[in-house]
Amino acid sequence: MKKHNFYAGPSILPEYTIKNTADAVLNFAGTGLSVMEVSHRGKEFVAVMDEAQALFKELLNIPDNYEVLFLGGGASTQFCMVPYNLMKKKAAYLNTGAWAAKAQKEAGFFGEVVEVASSKDANYNYIPKGYEIPADADYFHITTNNTIYGTEIKEDLDVNVPLVADMSSDIFSRPIDVSKYAVIYGGAQKNLAPAGVTFVIVKKDILGQTGRAIPTMLDYRTHADKGSMFNTPPVLPVFAALQTLKWLKEQGGIAAMQKKNEEKAAVLYDEIDRNKLFKGTARKEDRSLMNICFVMNEEYAELEKEFLDFATERGMIGIKGHRSVGGFRASTYNALPLESVKALVETMQEFEKKH
Amino acid sequence: MKKHNFYAGPSILPEYTIKNTADAVLNFAGTGLSVMEVSHRGKEFVAVMDEAQALFKELLNIPDNYEVLFLGGGASTQFCMVPYNLMKKKAAYLNTGAWAAKAQKEAGFFGEVVEVASSKDANYNYIPKGYEIPADADYFHITTNNTIYGTEIKEDLDVNVPLVADMSSDIFSRPIDVSKYAVIYGGAQKNLAPAGVTFVIVKKDILGQTGRAIPTMLDYRTHADKGSMFNTPPVLPVFAALQTLKWLKEQGGIAAMQKKNEEKAAVLYDEIDRNKLFKGTARKEDRSLMNICFVMNEEYAELEKEFLDFATERGMIGIKGHRSVGGFRASTYNALPLESVKALVETMQEFEKKH
Repeated sequence: MKKHNFYAGPSILPEYTIKNTADAVLNFAGTGLSVMEVSHRGKEFVAVMDEAQALFKELLNIPDNYEVLFLGGGASTQFCMVPYNLMKKKAAYLNTGAWAAKAQKEAGFFGEVVEVASSKDANYNYIPKGYEIPADADYFHITTNNTIYGTEIKEDLDVNVPLVADMSSDIFSRPIDVSKYAVIYGGAQKNLAPAGVTFVIVKKDILGQTGRAIPTMLDYRTHADKGSMFNTPPVLPVFAALQTLKWLKEQGGIAAMQKKNEEKAAVLYDEIDRNKLFKGTARKEDRSLMNICFVMNEEYAELEKEFLDFATERGMIGIKGHRSVGGFRASTYNALPLESVKALVETMQEFEKKH
Repeated sequence: MKKHNFYAGPSILPEYTIKNTADAVLNFAGTGLSVMEVSHRGKEFVAVMDEAQALFKELLNIPDNYEVLFLGGGASTQFCMVPYNLMKKKAAYLNTGAWAAKAQKEAGFFGEVVEVASSKDANYNYIPKGYEIPADADYFHITTNNTIYGTEIKEDLDVNVPLVADMSSDIFSRPIDVSKYAVIYGGAQKNLAPAGVTFVIVKKDILGQTGRAIPTMLDYRTHADKGSMFNTPPVLPVFAALQTLKWLKEQGGIAAMQKKNEEKAAVLYDEIDRNKLFKGTARKEDRSLMNICFVMNEEYAELEKEFLDFATERGMIGIKGHRSVGGFRASTYNALPLESVKALVETMQEFEKKH
């Protein structure tokens, strides 16, 4: 039976990435050695790192005064690296979910934190608007896509202070204007690579202004100065990331990817809105194109477990919603084919007929 | 031609690890999905993480009051996590090489650092002995194996303060008495796994004593409390680590591995000492069993490049010495077969006959 991988992350990767990585685990770049057992200073891996950074910049049209870094430690480590590197006295945060709140909490170790707005009271089912950012904030932090709640900031905000964004779960899903951001970061395990590598896009001239002594590995300058090779990078995850970047380019780039993502999301949201058994959990205008959350309509609440089993039997994987929202979540990352979304929709329709 | 992988790190891994990882990249644990695209909260990966921690503890005979963590960021990140978590006012360091010095430098961000001894004046070609550790030091930090210089502390030291060891390049090469250490850490990319995962063995009751506020991801307690699953771990590197741990057990465990390592090192050091063209760089009593450094004897200095080419033509990979020592370095990690050492020795003998 065909499996449809709707995991929220780590999550589906292109077959191109999987196949090329499997090949490289056995024989990397014709070396006769595994990509897992070659020096990161050897010319073959240096070429991988260089190409991955170049393609990352090309696909996102990143200006020259930014560096692309591939680090370890996950986005959670960036939650403290951002204030370590950027916060003098005060930082502003938009609280749009559990991960946004975790990021915000870490800033508290370094200075004053202003929560400009929060949707926590509505279980984070929307993106707050119309807030004011203190003009003296050193930066404003947002989480563009909220994986758990299925909400997304789908445009590049215009704000009055340096903008920092956690794009763990929507990087490469739509074109972005990088010049509007000071830092963009994320775990790679959604749209890019297997878990184990974290991307950071950092505007160089914003660094070194806090007067704070920063331990070497936590200082963005360390990595920016060494082309992300200060210490041994996560070699295999970076290799896999390069494969996904090549695939993205071959697919027509980010604008083409956005079109496909919009199409996939429309097919699924339309069914959620049409099907009498289900309803979406996020406000329509803030619906995520990456994580589509839905629950049973009240009058069918008792069918939740039955639908999960019904869908699982039909090859749907990872559609159980996060416990803080309940119901279901279909993650429709770049690598998920429209075919999988259609299979889920058919499953929902079959289930509706049954009831 | 058979390749002999003498890279210093990332470095040779067992064929068992490579084959099983390649298989899992295509189909992990019968899921029909790649190990790169499954949830780390799924039962299949949770089982991998649990087994990896259990086997790690079993092979090193780790007491119950220690946790084994698999983190990101490399040993270099541990250089600051150690003082962040353990240093109240003062820490003692043994300066045995470039990496030891880097670890020592990071401690300076957190308090007073006492360098108890250094072999820097002799280009780190020996391990200092007979030093005194201040009784009021919060811990004493050592680097057990110095990859660049080919020296090694081959026994568990008895010291008067908590002992912290970077064992990046000799973990699992010999049995150790973990109870003598407060923390043991290392990058996994020598004897364990591909780059991208860092192991930390930490004695739980030493934590939480500094009074310092520690950002969440830098606090060992965060990871110890969550079985190393606070955030998404580096899934594939942990999977690969488990394969190596299984292989180690199947090989007879660490004591059997030590015997093989001693045999391999003896074969190569004997040839270095016998062959008129070469000489070892480390003091004999401190010679590493993992990284064997040698240079041309003075009267044959001009043959260095010729020997490198001669050996490369015969399938020797990664034997160029680090620029700060020069000459040659053959890394003889656990996964390197005796056959490869013998091939190198034959190459040295052939080259001697030629001259």
